[in-house]
Order: sequence, then structure tokens, then C-alpha cells
Amino acid sequence: MDRIAIIGASMTQFGVREGSWICDLLSEAAMGCIDAANVDPQDIDQVYVSNMASGEFEGRTGIMNALVHDIGAIPAYTTRIDQTSASGGAGIYAAWQSIASGHSEMTLLVGGEKMTHTSTSHATDIISTLTHPVEYKHGVTLPSFAGLISQLYLHEYNASRESLAKVAVKNHKNGIDNPHAHFRKAIDIETVLSSPVIADPLRLYDFCPITDGSAALMMCPESTAKEITDDYVVITGIGGATDTHVVHERRDPTTLDAVINSSKKAYHMANKNPDDVDVAELHDMFTILEILQSEDLGFFNKGEGWKAVEEGLTDRDGTIPINTSGGLKSKGHPLGASGVAQVHELYHQLLNTAGKRQVNADVALACNIGGFGNCVITTILESI
Amino acid sequence: MDRIAIIGASMTQFGVREGSWICDLLSEAAMGCIDAANVDPQDIDQVYVSNMASGEFEGRTGIMNALVHDIGAIPAYTTRIDQTSASGGAGIYAAWQSIASGHSEMTLLVGGEKMTHTSTSHATDIISTLTHPVEYKHGVTLPSFAGLISQLYLHEYNASRESLAKVAVKNHKNGIDNPHAHFRKAIDIETVLSSPVIADPLRLYDFCPITDGSAALMMCPESTAKEITDDYVVITGIGGATDTHVVHERRDPTTLDAVINSSKKAYHMANKNPDDVDVAELHDMFTILEILQSEDLGFFNKGEGWKAVEEGLTDRDGTIPINTSGGLKSKGHPLGASGVAQVHELYHQLLNTAGKRQVNADVALACNIGGFGNCVITTILESI
Repeated sequence: MDRIAIIGASMTQFGVREGSWICDLLSEAAMGCIDAANVDPQDIDQVYVSNMASGEFEGRTGIMNALVHDIGAIPAYTTRIDQTSASGGAGIYAAWQSIASGHSEMTLLVGGEKMTHTSTSHATDIISTLTHPVEYKHGVTLPSFAGLISQLYLHEYNASRESLAKVAVKNHKNGIDNPHAHFRKAIDIETVLSSPVIADPLRLYDFCPITDGSAALMMCPESTAKEITDDYVVITGIGGATDTHVVHERRDPTTLDAVINSSKKAYHMANKNPDDVDVAELHDMFTILEILQSEDLGFFNKGEGWKAVEEGLTDRDGTIPINTSGGLKSKGHPLGASGVAQVHELYHQLLNTAGKRQVNADVALACNIGGFGNCVITTILESI
Repeated sequence: MDRIAIIGASMTQFGVREGSWICDLLSEAAMGCIDAANVDPQDIDQVYVSNMASGEFEGRTGIMNALVHDIGAIPAYTTRIDQTSASGGAGIYAAWQSIASGHSEMTLLVGGEKMTHTSTSHATDIISTLTHPVEYKHGVTLPSFAGLISQLYLHEYNASRESLAKVAVKNHKNGIDNPHAHFRKAIDIETVLSSPVIADPLRLYDFCPITDGSAALMMCPESTAKEITDDYVVITGIGGATDTHVVHERRDPTTLDAVINSSKKAYHMANKNPDDVDVAELHDMFTILEILQSEDLGFFNKGEGWKAVEEGLTDRDGTIPINTSGGLKSKGHPLGASGVAQVHELYHQLLNTAGKRQVNADVALACNIGGFGNCVITTILESI
């Protein structure tokens, strides 16, 4: 079968986008991607919009229909994809399936979220509706889970608190070189450890911010890509999996089974092993999550991800650079955009167009997490 | 390529489901479908949930992750599909693509919406967020469009007001024989014409109700279906298309281009003509919509759909029975469920298990409309 190619990628400035609303952000990323891919909007067969909650955040729905109109792509088919904080990854999977099914020769994926116009407490209230209501009622929100699981991880594996902080320090350092990042500011371990406690032992700087932004990808069969450009990358593996929606029912809270199961599918499809991966974008909504993923994806043994961070193995010049984009931590986390922006970064890494962030990479992996690993999508990309 | 089969279908009672919430309704339909298809939940690869607005209606998101947990299908991949009032049709398309892409051997689709627990004005406020905000600000809501376009249609084609009412009368009559329908009550033309004006010339009984409910389908490659059961139907055509999001920009408001374009794709794929269709479920959110669709799908010439209704051609014993289930008008319209429930009806019609509603059919068509034709999905099904 024809492999599926990404022939263009674009993203808006991430951050506080005052005066821009969800449809503005989606259109901006979409038009950037149409330009980058040099595609006529009328040649687009399907458009997927990854977005968790435009209705809750902005009182606006039908944003995918508005987008298709705005970019001149009518009569292209469209739908909205919501997989909570993994909506972007789910959009990649939907776009991939649209082409692999033979029903689209050109699919545009646009992910975005507009979040900063409301109060932080209202925004986190909206986000927390994705957890199980019984856990939520008892105060176990996503940040609480992160705190509890960090406690457990530090205890079980004798890990250092500093290693968690080091994830934030590393990702902020990478973000300085990303012109699209929300924060472009160096921090040190002391910054993290002296910031306000959010969910013990995690502090403010262990968490990603609330951010506005959008990102887009243009995808088509490789045979079509070849006729259009020499600069494309291919998706060679993709898989999705769920874990318990009730987090306390998990066999081991420090293991994300949906990361294991989704990546197993992606590795198998791509015929790759964890050792083959040269660069990865992981879902560092909380610092602990990056470490857990780096283990559950097979980059490091269980309980040793924290050491890898301390030893600099995940730094830009390490053995497996993680979150060269700055990650969710520094780039920001507009829910529906994040999974798309991960692949935006890897697209540029594989094409050698990542500027100061460039690493040496032929095989790249993105891991996008919904909830606390409630559903996960892993994507493997390769240069041609 | 292997065709894609539906091996089981289920739906909940539609109506006012006091005490049931969105996750209860989805689970009820899903478990009914798992039983009907006789499939082990652990054999399900992907689960799609069609739902427009659980966050807005109920303050609950992540409902697809909750469902997969509830029905014992972990680690199946899942995502939520929103295409406003056509979320069900979009879910069918997503499920179809999941199997056609080779990434799922068994896909469960569950559509549902819980709407009646809030006030009618709040519910319609939520729904109206799907229209263009500028039109909305000027009072042009979906019912207003329906009124304006009805005026135009009656004028342009010299149609009778009674023909619109007859759509409601026919669908209520069909609904009497559908145990799942919200309303099982005969009405006559006088009932419609004497009900309160909503958007002149349309009156209360020209509109579908606000309803709770859920419906589900189990889908797999036909080769797999053959091993499991003799009682299945196949999807032989499916297509989706958009029209302008700003309704007043359309070339002819009485023509739904997205119905024309999506059905063109479906007919082409199935290698069928409108004349081949034996039974259809159309999106009769408003009585006028059923007539417009019956023309734009090619069942009748433009401007003659109203005559066909008057002549009884769309009655159960007519040449092309439309909405044998009772349609949205009598069965109810829980947004995310409706497109799935359309196919639930056709599945039974094609398998000769539609009870008192049974017509003679080998080829069936479902047309599910998002907004006022902003995005439309047409599906063609056949008996084996």
C-alpha cells in the first residue's frame, strides 16, 4: 500500500492570543499550511478539526464547517475530532485513515484551542470534565493525579525530585529556540523548586500553561506527494489505545498502559524498535508524564527515566532528544493543537528545517495523551 | 476490496429519559449492540462516539473513554465525532474509514445525546451555536431558516402548505409502529395547521422534538461478517460534503448542494441511481427539509417533492417510502444518535426485521444533515 505523506505543516504563534478566536486561529494555521504545501484548497477532499471544547470555551460549535468555508475548501467533507487533550493525535489518526481508506487524496488536519480568554479556574473546570466524575468529586483532578503519581514514582524508584524539575528546565531551554513557543525563557532547577506548590511534590513550573494556538498538517498518499514536492515525510506507524477511565483502577499508577499498547501498534506497523527512534515529542503536560512515557515507550527501563533526564540523555545533544520544540511545558498546550504541533516539530526535524533546534534524525515519534493516559495515540514518522 | 458490513444494531428508547445521563444512554445502546452482534467486547478494535455537545448539555466530556471502560472494551482505541446534527452520519463515515483503512477488524459506533434535562430555550441556545454567529445575531436561527426557505419554496413552486403538514402526518403515522419512537401518536393535517406558529409558515408540528437517546452499530469487513452471521447488511456507498456555512450566501436557498454532492459520491461508489433506492431515512428536522432532500437526492424533480408527498409516493406503501422509522419528527432527534438511528432502521428494513414497518427493500439510503445542510453525509446500504 501507498504510504501516507505529510507535505506541509504550519502553526500559529502559541500564547495569549488576545483578539483571536478559535475560528481565527484555525484559519490562520490552515492557510499557512495550504501555502506551505502549495495546494489549491479546492483539491482538498477532507478536513479534520481537532478541538476539545470550543462550545464550552467560546459558545461556538460547527467550527469545522466555518473553517471549510473560510479557507475556500467547500465542498470538502469535514468533521470535528475530540479526544480531550489528545484530540490532535486523534485527528492525525482520522486523517491517516481517511487517506488509507481510499476516500481522500488530500486531507487537511487543523488542531486548535482558544483558552486564555476565560479565568484559569474556569478553564481548568472545563478540562476537568474529562475525568471520571466520582474521582473529580473527591478532588482527584488531573494535577492531583500527577502529584500522587509523582510521590509514588519518587518513592518506588528512589528517584530525585530534581529530575522532575530538570524536565521543565530542559524543555524551557529548547523552547527558547522555537519562535512559536508560548514561553521563551530559560529557567533553572531552583526556579521550579521554589515556585508555588500545586499538588505536592509538584510545583507551578512542573505544569504546562494554558495557551491559545493552532497547528495544521497537509496529508496525502506518497505517490501524490512525489508529484508535488521533494520535501515530505511519511507516517510509517500509528496506533491508539485506551486505559481505564477510572485512574485508581490501574494495576500500577506509574505505568501508562495506553502508551505501551498504542506504541506497540505503531512500532509493529513501522517495523521499528524503541532504539530506532532518533527524536521524540512527548506529552509533558506535567513533568512526571514525560518521564513515565520515556519508559513506557521503551526508550529507558522502568524506573530509569529520571536518571536519563539527569544524565542529559534526553537533551538536544543526548542519545534521544525529547521535546526539542519545548514541549507542552514551554511551547504551550492548546488542547486540540498540541498533538498536531508535536508532528509539526518532527516534520521539521526530519526535513532538516528545525533551525537552531535541529538534531540528527531519520525516525521520529510523537506521543499524545488524553486525560491521564485514558486514551493515547502514538505516531512514528520517517524521512524519505 | 472487502465491503464493509453491519452485523448488529441497537437503540435505546428515544424520548424523555429522566434519570439517565449521556453515559448511561451510550452504554445501554452499546451493550444492546454487542449482544445483537454477539461480539466479545475484547474483540473490538475501535469505538466511535457520535455526540455534538455532552460538555455543553451535561458538563461532561471524555464520554468515549468512559464508554470503552464501561463496556469492557479497553484497550480499544476511541474518539468522539462531532458534526453537529450530522454527528451520527459522520460517525458512520469514521467507522467505515477505520475498517477500510485496514486498521480495524471490528468497530463499534455509538451515537447519543442527552438534551431534555435542560430548558427548551437553553437546549436551542446550545444548538444554535452551530450556525454562523453573524446570522444568529440577526435572529436567523435554524428554525428561522426553515421558515424563510419554506416561504420561498411554496412561492417558487406553487406548492401547498398542506404538503408540508403531510410530511409530519406521515412520519407520525410511521412512528406509531416504532416501539423506540419518542411520539407514537397519530396526528392529522389540522393538528399541524392549528399548532402554534414557530417561524411562519412553519408551526410547532413542523418541527422535530428535543429528545434523549442513543443508537449503536457494529461494523466489520464482510469477510469477517460471513464467519459470524448470515444476517448482515453492507454499506456500498458513502460520501460527505459541505455547503456554505453562511446560509445566505447560497446560490439557491431551496437547494441543498451538500445533499447533492454527498449523494453523488455515495451513488457513484455504490454504482446506483436514485431510482434504485427502495427506502430512505431522511433528516426531517423540519418538514420542509424532507421535501428538499427528496428532490436533491434525485428521487423527484426539483419543485415536485411536495406533490410526491401529497400523492402518497413517500408513504409506507408508496414508490419510495421515506422515514418508515417515524423520522426525526416522531422518533425524536437526539443529535448524535439520529444518523445512527437512521441506519438502525434501514438495517432492519434490509433484513426484513422491521415488524409492522416492513417494506420491500434491497437498496436503502440515509441522509444525515449538519446545520442547514452545512455538512451532509449520505450512506447507501444493501442487503446481501
